[in-house]
Amino acid sequence: MAVKITSRSENFSRWYIEVIKEADLAEYSPVRGCIVIKPYGYALWENIQKILDEKLKATGHKNAYFPLFIPESFLKKEKEHIEGFSPQLAVVTYGGGKQLEENLIVRPTSETIIYASFARWIKSWRDLPLLINQWANVVRWELRPRFFLRTMEFLWQEGHTAHASHKEAEKEALNILKIYRQLVEEELAIPVVAGVKSEKEKFAGALRTFTIEAMTQDKKALQMGTSHDLGQNFARVFNISFQDEKGNSRYVWQTSWGVSTRLIGGIIMVHGDDKGIVLPPKVAPIQVVIIPVWPNEIEKKRVIEKTREIKEKLETEKIRVLVDERDYVTFGEKHYEWEKKGVPIRIEIGPKELVASQVVLVRRDTGEKKATLETELISEIRRDLEAIQVDLYRRALNFQRKNTYEVFSWDEFKKMIKTKRGFLKASWCGAGECEEAIKKETKAIIRCIPLEGGKAEGNCIFCGKSSTRKVIFALSY
Amino acid sequence: MAVKITSRSENFSRWYIEVIKEADLAEYSPVRGCIVIKPYGYALWENIQKILDEKLKATGHKNAYFPLFIPESFLKKEKEHIEGFSPQLAVVTYGGGKQLEENLIVRPTSETIIYASFARWIKSWRDLPLLINQWANVVRWELRPRFFLRTMEFLWQEGHTAHASHKEAEKEALNILKIYRQLVEEELAIPVVAGVKSEKEKFAGALRTFTIEAMTQDKKALQMGTSHDLGQNFARVFNISFQDEKGNSRYVWQTSWGVSTRLIGGIIMVHGDDKGIVLPPKVAPIQVVIIPVWPNEIEKKRVIEKTREIKEKLETEKIRVLVDERDYVTFGEKHYEWEKKGVPIRIEIGPKELVASQVVLVRRDTGEKKATLETELISEIRRDLEAIQVDLYRRALNFQRKNTYEVFSWDEFKKMIKTKRGFLKASWCGAGECEEAIKKETKAIIRCIPLEGGKAEGNCIFCGKSSTRKVIFALSY
Repeated sequence: MAVKITSRSENFSRWYIEVIKEADLAEYSPVRGCIVIKPYGYALWENIQKILDEKLKATGHKNAYFPLFIPESFLKKEKEHIEGFSPQLAVVTYGGGKQLEENLIVRPTSETIIYASFARWIKSWRDLPLLINQWANVVRWELRPRFFLRTMEFLWQEGHTAHASHKEAEKEALNILKIYRQLVEEELAIPVVAGVKSEKEKFAGALRTFTIEAMTQDKKALQMGTSHDLGQNFARVFNISFQDEKGNSRYVWQTSWGVSTRLIGGIIMVHGDDKGIVLPPKVAPIQVVIIPVWPNEIEKKRVIEKTREIKEKLETEKIRVLVDERDYVTFGEKHYEWEKKGVPIRIEIGPKELVASQVVLVRRDTGEKKATLETELISEIRRDLEAIQVDLYRRALNFQRKNTYEVFSWDEFKKMIKTKRGFLKASWCGAGECEEAIKKETKAIIRCIPLEGGKAEGNCIFCGKSSTRKVIFALSY
Repeated sequence: MAVKITSRSENFSRWYIEVIKEADLAEYSPVRGCIVIKPYGYALWENIQKILDEKLKATGHKNAYFPLFIPESFLKKEKEHIEGFSPQLAVVTYGGGKQLEENLIVRPTSETIIYASFARWIKSWRDLPLLINQWANVVRWELRPRFFLRTMEFLWQEGHTAHASHKEAEKEALNILKIYRQLVEEELAIPVVAGVKSEKEKFAGALRTFTIEAMTQDKKALQMGTSHDLGQNFARVFNISFQDEKGNSRYVWQTSWGVSTRLIGGIIMVHGDDKGIVLPPKVAPIQVVIIPVWPNEIEKKRVIEKTREIKEKLETEKIRVLVDERDYVTFGEKHYEWEKKGVPIRIEIGPKELVASQVVLVRRDTGEKKATLETELISEIRRDLEAIQVDLYRRALNFQRKNTYEVFSWDEFKKMIKTKRGFLKASWCGAGECEEAIKKETKAIIRCIPLEGGKAEGNCIFCGKSSTRKVIFALSY
């Protein structure tokens, strides 16, 4: 039963697909590009959701729900927006047995339908800021789907806010980026680089797009979340205006932002190893799995009793625990299964341990095994869960740093992206032509202009003109 | 600012629309038949979701997520199923800029797409029972939409299970009905009649449909949730089989079940009064609203301080509380607003109360006002929240009982349904022809054959033939 998983070094893409299957996170569906998120994968998403939902509510955001369908005319109102999304749309042309007079677009994102409501909701400066969030499914046609990273339908949250001034809106966009960064770094244990997208890479319809970028183990960039300063682009076309304190009518300033089930892909690609996925304790659906071991029926009863007792103890301590009592699966198979599923801590209990009043505790990330006295079990588990969380982050941060290179010449750039990949930090003059040429020749994309260290004198890596910014180039998902 | 709401007796439908608008629960969207669930309405839904989700998880159900789109061919596999749903479908014919080879249906319910997964997931009796739940949006084309009760898109949970025997599946369907009943009666304070649907009214593709039916204040029936014994209908067409303990291949037995945002409509229609909606404390987004009253700026500071102090006290007691500190809204306007929004308890604090170390506490359901010593506030609020919850249920139960009539002749039936409406309990021979004829002549529909008291000798109210069942007829939403 121990399925051999392709190693990461052999074929990272195949490894990714195999560990998802082996961990029972998701499967492809009969609808091209759509996946089924299986219970174990969905439980992981629910844990992420819960943490982020609390953070958003704590900062004054309120959840609401807007229609799945957007009238085609709405989507067309903001020119850049429709141009950005039109190749990706799913279109409903029939409803209730009849051809529709106006086609309905299945939302690829909800700016237009939500802002039609904002125009009705906002009248006075007293209605501002308006801070709305929506948990929803969205659809973007994908020709090359990839589990969690790019699927035709995906689950996400999309925040939409309106403010009285540009300064306030920008502050909100950056605040959200900070919340995303905390979520990803502290809860998912994934280090990121925060920055601004280039004009070419920004959200269709935004003034500026902020992003957090992670590095996968195959040294590509993975965008984990974005936050957009929309300026007044949508406010003007949807006529979202308010009376200010002096009685003047003014357009609002807006932001939108989102993270999606793509975060799950990030967890897999950053922390997984050749044995399967590795889950950060804070979001793991099961933090501790207990495997009872028995040589015969008499011992079985006693061992099972003990495991149940320990399980209850852990549950009162709010530790997410599962006991694997199956008698038709061998110990070895259980061992592999929970390893593949990335459960942070495995506990083994057999008759020997019973006699010694101890258990064997195994860390998923390091494989480290230790006998632990039952009396010290809770505190030891707490320590280990924290240690795993911290160590996962530290390892990923070291990996990211080790694979970030500062490059100063175009030849060096080409050589590095081909031989090393990673994040290439290089000066860029700001011209779209250079950005385009670099992408065409190397497939490397400007992931962001980092918020920290992005301002620096130098010469554009491509054209050699003087430049004031250092940006991160990378191959990307 | 005190908008006059149409009274229930004047025009119940208009009252319903107006209280929803005034309570800021929802609004119609630019997409015909789709609503926007505004933050206050969505918070109510989240509270309902949370309670039900916990109940389902506690009984072994696991959440997962399946595609929004269903290939047309899948939906057509179960004949009764597609016949039941085909007039209501929204069809995607274009995707990614191209006409699709096979149309995609936006799920009206997910039996077919989920059971395609079940066929892959289930191999052995050890994989059973399989207990899956999904929180999702679904789309059913509606020509006559009505807030929450019938909207083109709605939010719901849909449970889907597979079992080794019919007995087990039936037990599951009834267990779920019990969970729904507890949710609706204990948390939403809405009494229901539980029963079985007639052949004509059952779910398209089910063997039997169980239902819980509430009575609205205009004396119509409102279906609050259904649970279906699917038999092996879907198992056969999707080939969901398992090896039993003896090694024989057998089809599974299945159930499916759901409740939706329609529950919100039930709360409004059962508990609302001429002043607005009335929310059961257990699911109210705000359980207590505090309105500070101040005659001048000096008093204001002291009053606000006190209200904040009380707010914190309530919050540590896990009571959901809001302080309305707005200074551009009069006391009277605030009073009306929170009344319209159905907040169970209103607290008023002014300088007079400050001096006496007391507050004025007002019950939304009865309007009862009482001065309460600050030292007794928490316990008094707890008592009142419980009393409101119980009283709402009791009042609704009395109303339901008062408006349930046993009728014995066709003339009496016609007269009662015309003059009194309500639930008419009558004998029915079981023939679809009688059911059809009764519906045609009176618009009354068999809501259910009650689980309690449904078996009784008599003569069919329409044809006079001997009958063994008493059923509930009613006009319905």
